[in-house]
Amino acid sequence: MATMTAQTVDDFIAELTFDASGLIPAIAQQWDSGQVLMMAWMNSESVRITLDSGRATYWSRSRGELWRKGDTSGHIQTVKSVARDCDSDVLLLQVDQIGPACHTGLRSCFDTESVELEAQGDLA
Amino acid sequence: MATMTAQTVDDFIAELTFDASGLIPAIAQQWDSGQVLMMAWMNSESVRITLDSGRATYWSRSRGELWRKGDTSGHIQTVKSVARDCDSDVLLLQVDQIGPACHTGLRSCFDTESVELEAQGDLA
Repeated sequence: MATMTAQTVDDFIAELTFDASGLIPAIAQQWDSGQVLMMAWMNSESVRITLDSGRATYWSRSRGELWRKGDTSGHIQTVKSVARDCDSDVLLLQVDQIGPACHTGLRSCFDTESVELEAQGDLA
Repeated sequence: MATMTAQTVDDFIAELTFDASGLIPAIAQQWDSGQVLMMAWMNSESVRITLDSGRATYWSRSRGELWRKGDTSGHIQTVKSVARDCDSDVLLLQVDQIGPACHTGLRSCFDTESVELEAQGDLA
């Protein structure tokens, strides 16, 4: 059962700015730890499904189809809230991620070797 | 003074996948609080400047120019680390944000009214 009225969902989607391909970037952040898990893309239909179902549903650009995260892997994302940024062209999802978010089996897609920068003298 | 060797910077940039416009999304996260502050775009030159200088530098799609964050506002982002995601087409920057990240004066560009979803019965 949807927890938002259809009108609210419609209004939210109407305020979003999708790119020329009809997509908007969506960042998924683990709601309690704050870890950024992944960034993927949504079209208006996937935003609607996400808001209606509470299950993060993206648009797979490589497969050209809706991708309800976890349907294959079981690693679902339950969505607690969705915010848009100041110019409404990026979404930030607070989610509860079951298991790894990344197809590599790592918790976050950003669990890669990062480049560490030391403080610069004039910025320290 | 750069804290990375030119070779390391070159290698890192060479591994990135830029989109058809030569851009890659970059998420800025406050390193200590975990707050997601904004998402903007970088081209390879802005990635290089960011890594070389330790100051987050984006590509402004609206102005069509490099945008070293804080040059006008003073609200600079000192970069502590940069990670790429599993398929190297999104960047995650751990930053120390001086003042508000958002041009609206809010700390985060995502400090908008968010849509709260209640737990679904079959997912709770």
